[in-house]
Amino acid sequence: MKKFNIAILGLGTVGGGTYDILKKNHDLIARRTGADYQVTRILEISDKAVAAHGVDPSMVAADADDILTADDIDIVVEALGGIEPATGFMLKAMENGKSVVTPNKAAVAASYKKLGETARENGVHFRFEASVGGGIPCLAGISESLAANEFSEIHGILNGTTNYILTKMGEDGRSYDDVLKEAQEKGFAEADPTADVEGIDAANKLSILMALAFDQYIPPMDIPRTGITGVTGEQLRAARERGCCIKLIAHAARKEDGSLSCDIRPTEIPFSHPLAGVNNEFNAVYVTGDAVGEVMFYGKGAGALPTGSAVVGDLIAIMKQLSTGCR
Amino acid sequence: MKKFNIAILGLGTVGGGTYDILKKNHDLIARRTGADYQVTRILEISDKAVAAHGVDPSMVAADADDILTADDIDIVVEALGGIEPATGFMLKAMENGKSVVTPNKAAVAASYKKLGETARENGVHFRFEASVGGGIPCLAGISESLAANEFSEIHGILNGTTNYILTKMGEDGRSYDDVLKEAQEKGFAEADPTADVEGIDAANKLSILMALAFDQYIPPMDIPRTGITGVTGEQLRAARERGCCIKLIAHAARKEDGSLSCDIRPTEIPFSHPLAGVNNEFNAVYVTGDAVGEVMFYGKGAGALPTGSAVVGDLIAIMKQLSTGCR
Repeated sequence: MKKFNIAILGLGTVGGGTYDILKKNHDLIARRTGADYQVTRILEISDKAVAAHGVDPSMVAADADDILTADDIDIVVEALGGIEPATGFMLKAMENGKSVVTPNKAAVAASYKKLGETARENGVHFRFEASVGGGIPCLAGISESLAANEFSEIHGILNGTTNYILTKMGEDGRSYDDVLKEAQEKGFAEADPTADVEGIDAANKLSILMALAFDQYIPPMDIPRTGITGVTGEQLRAARERGCCIKLIAHAARKEDGSLSCDIRPTEIPFSHPLAGVNNEFNAVYVTGDAVGEVMFYGKGAGALPTGSAVVGDLIAIMKQLSTGCR
Repeated sequence: MKKFNIAILGLGTVGGGTYDILKKNHDLIARRTGADYQVTRILEISDKAVAAHGVDPSMVAADADDILTADDIDIVVEALGGIEPATGFMLKAMENGKSVVTPNKAAVAASYKKLGETARENGVHFRFEASVGGGIPCLAGISESLAANEFSEIHGILNGTTNYILTKMGEDGRSYDDVLKEAQEKGFAEADPTADVEGIDAANKLSILMALAFDQYIPPMDIPRTGITGVTGEQLRAARERGCCIKLIAHAARKEDGSLSCDIRPTEIPFSHPLAGVNNEFNAVYVTGDAVGEVMFYGKGAGALPTGSAVVGDLIAIMKQLSTGCR
């Protein structure tokens, strides 16, 4: 089989995790899937990151075009994060005949239609499993394995930071500020946790889930949102007495007329429900399909290796399809 | 796109569910996946089953060869169940250039290598998502989405009958015989429940999971097995006091030397573990991969429509690949 040339934009958490997995598990992947590859170019300005992953400095691209318009790159992993220049880079890669894989939920949610159309117009593959639920294979699950279903409902615990905080507050009776501080120390929350605690991150992910499951695109900013900053120990105790925990739930449901209702808000979940067992940094996507009924995907929603696992899963899928001439 | 001709062997629970979904969701599937198809022939001796699904009697095959050696059939769904003649039919279909989809865990587990080799030799596709966990998309999850991982461990609740019985015994304090009777009345257990309660069904499924996740085939009969007939109310109460429930767990782990340890036995699971939330007829597959960490797939392990959903998911995957010339 052809040996595919892969380029990675960004050697941060996810780009670095992707690179590490591609290197460590190369032979396992080749043996199991028949996909052979090499990482040939990396865009990264930090020499420290380059050295930390043992990357040969000669592999570092001079600039983005050194990758995006190069003839000898087959697939680009966009792992810079943020809306721009990431989105522009992805579009340019596609316009230059390269398939794209990304974990970038903000960019995918903001430009869902444009990215999909551009991929189709240029006959390239575009995959973004890692953008929702980190390592959890929920997007392929929904759009491929469960493609026979008409979905009626989605419930998601889509953000590890808020799930960690609510789990600890609920279990230990500690205050929001106290748990947030611990989460930051342990790397489960950012120095500025706004995007997570206000549900913005979850909204990006719910937008993508709705587009895939219901074939309806709702911009993340149009999703009604209540974050977790107002959740109190008293509410958690009262919920517990009712046999419930409180989770930040991203919810979408198809209404009778086919349109969607959706929101993100702290919600009481009975302890008997599988979603109540999704704790700390774990995420879950719980869907209801007209044939399969209720299905839940559970796993680590973030982290270098879990997210890298999803990125590499997408790379493998693309390489298999390109090998057999699939467009 | 080409319109694929699909034949179904057997219009029982799963064959009937598959047929119903293919009919009901035809336009949804075509629109969403680009896959167009028609069911052109069905092997079924019961006129009642044929009528119950509204199948045109002219579509009923005279015999198996009317499907297996026919020039105008692209994909065969084998939904007869049992080892023979199902296995022979699948091999014959493949030898005649037809791709095969099956939910038949006993046949797949018994002839795993032969079925896979025959498919490869004949350049056809062979998929069996429905054979483990019914509608749960765990096999594609493990072998495709998570293909970048080296797996170290699998824990499965793979049989709905035994999970239903243990759930009710644990929650309601009722006796095994009492709950078994109710399970049979509700259709969650067979008149002869041996294959389920003795863990034979779970062994078939664990054999398939191990082959996919660890690339090692262990015949189901070689898996050490203890069923649930010896589980008592006293054990369940004692477990509950220790903060655990008891589940019939199918377990496999890679040892240091790369070989596998595996067994199926009633096992105490802490209530805090996600597997403890898998109750009644629901199943789950919990895997640990070196990149992704812990992932759980949860859903209905049996039933006409859930299992049919997985069969149709496999049909869609094959049609997509055949459309683009993939072999």
